[in-house]
Amino acid sequence: MKAVIIGAGNVGTHLAIALKNEGVQVVQVVSRTMKSALELASRIECSFTTEMDNINTTADMYIISVSDRAIQQVIRQLCPLIGNKFVVHTSGSVGIDVFYDYAINYGVVYPLQTFSKFKEINYSEIPIFIESNTNENIIHLTDFVRKISPHVHVANSEQRAYLHLCAVIACNFTNHLNALAEMLLLKKDLKYEAFRPLLRETFEKLSKYSPRISQTGPAMRKDMFIIEKHIELLNDYPEIQKIYGEMSQSIIDFYAKDEKQ
Amino acid sequence: MKAVIIGAGNVGTHLAIALKNEGVQVVQVVSRTMKSALELASRIECSFTTEMDNINTTADMYIISVSDRAIQQVIRQLCPLIGNKFVVHTSGSVGIDVFYDYAINYGVVYPLQTFSKFKEINYSEIPIFIESNTNENIIHLTDFVRKISPHVHVANSEQRAYLHLCAVIACNFTNHLNALAEMLLLKKDLKYEAFRPLLRETFEKLSKYSPRISQTGPAMRKDMFIIEKHIELLNDYPEIQKIYGEMSQSIIDFYAKDEKQ
Repeated sequence: MKAVIIGAGNVGTHLAIALKNEGVQVVQVVSRTMKSALELASRIECSFTTEMDNINTTADMYIISVSDRAIQQVIRQLCPLIGNKFVVHTSGSVGIDVFYDYAINYGVVYPLQTFSKFKEINYSEIPIFIESNTNENIIHLTDFVRKISPHVHVANSEQRAYLHLCAVIACNFTNHLNALAEMLLLKKDLKYEAFRPLLRETFEKLSKYSPRISQTGPAMRKDMFIIEKHIELLNDYPEIQKIYGEMSQSIIDFYAKDEKQ
Repeated sequence: MKAVIIGAGNVGTHLAIALKNEGVQVVQVVSRTMKSALELASRIECSFTTEMDNINTTADMYIISVSDRAIQQVIRQLCPLIGNKFVVHTSGSVGIDVFYDYAINYGVVYPLQTFSKFKEINYSEIPIFIESNTNENIIHLTDFVRKISPHVHVANSEQRAYLHLCAVIACNFTNHLNALAEMLLLKKDLKYEAFRPLLRETFEKLSKYSPRISQTGPAMRKDMFIIEKHIELLNDYPEIQKIYGEMSQSIIDFYAKDEKQ
């Protein structure tokens, strides 16, 4: 099994490493920027190019892992060069229809995870959502993806878009809330480290129970006394103040619906 | 060492259990509601009352763990009955000044944690922030609090208010973001369970690095293509749509400041 990786960003990098570790021969890295191409190619010991025209056409699988906006253009350049070879992209938010006019055997491989280049990841724990143009190709793609993770699910383009949206809400926004908390604590000579046990408990609950039953805090208790006090403490931070207000209102409304039912 | 717990909510319950486990004699539980009083008293095998006038006046420490709005009234009723005995409240957001006109030896014991009655907690890992009216009482209170956790810090009322605010932001709001994600996923026949590895990774990063360096996602990349797509996917959920917009803008602005510096 031979694969070519197009794109050397966070997703492409971790995917290429995982494939190589599981015995897939990654024969080439394609990236517009020489630095990224070189970096990834040397990490997985394969050749690289910055020009699509120099692509290795002997591979079985072509994996497009570039920014969402660039996917269509890459497909347009790539597909005439590879004929009926299998081609996939790895985006949550780009539909499978992006391949319609250009490819014969195609699909999507969407790993639901947050990737940072600085942190290694155990790919075998990651759920991977796939989509493909025929049932036969679904089977083919499942076999390929199972090399790196046993957690393979089929999801259509609309479902995948919501998976990505929810990943942003549950993961990226969570990280940002913590960045805001850290910044506020520093201003008052307090250390973010003290929050780590609280975070651990929050995540332990999320890993065992539905978040719906774990909600605590002033908005859950409809404690307007505290909510107003907190809003006041944020007078110097109008943007965080707005977030605090919206989130508290959203919590109140979310559970008000429960009460009505 | 004998203690009386006033209030049988989440904080009072976990505190009473931790104290008892560490050899403090919890002699009485005081709660306005018979059910809560009975429940906690039977759990830690002590007497209980629903009337402040029946309070056991032989204890060394009186711990007020009632809702923030009720603290002042409890102090007014309690303090004339206990003379110079030590009295503390456990609130993040109520200043130490609430004791000024009523108590002689007083302070605050604020455990920075999220408590659910249904889930046991290891108190010895919880950071506890204390404040008291004299240096001697700080020492006295430190000795008392160390029975249940080695992580004792001194914080003034303003710092404590920000600790509470940041706990709401970092913990309560994180839980709510996950509740929103779970709800959206269910609507699209997807399971929240698939998010658990993503959550674990998010939390692992938060437990090792500053959230500032771990930020990923479309807002971090200023990817307006995806942000606008996500905003559109939320057309049926105007409240979540507003949160998505505010959070994304906040991420963009947060790192724009870095670029300027």
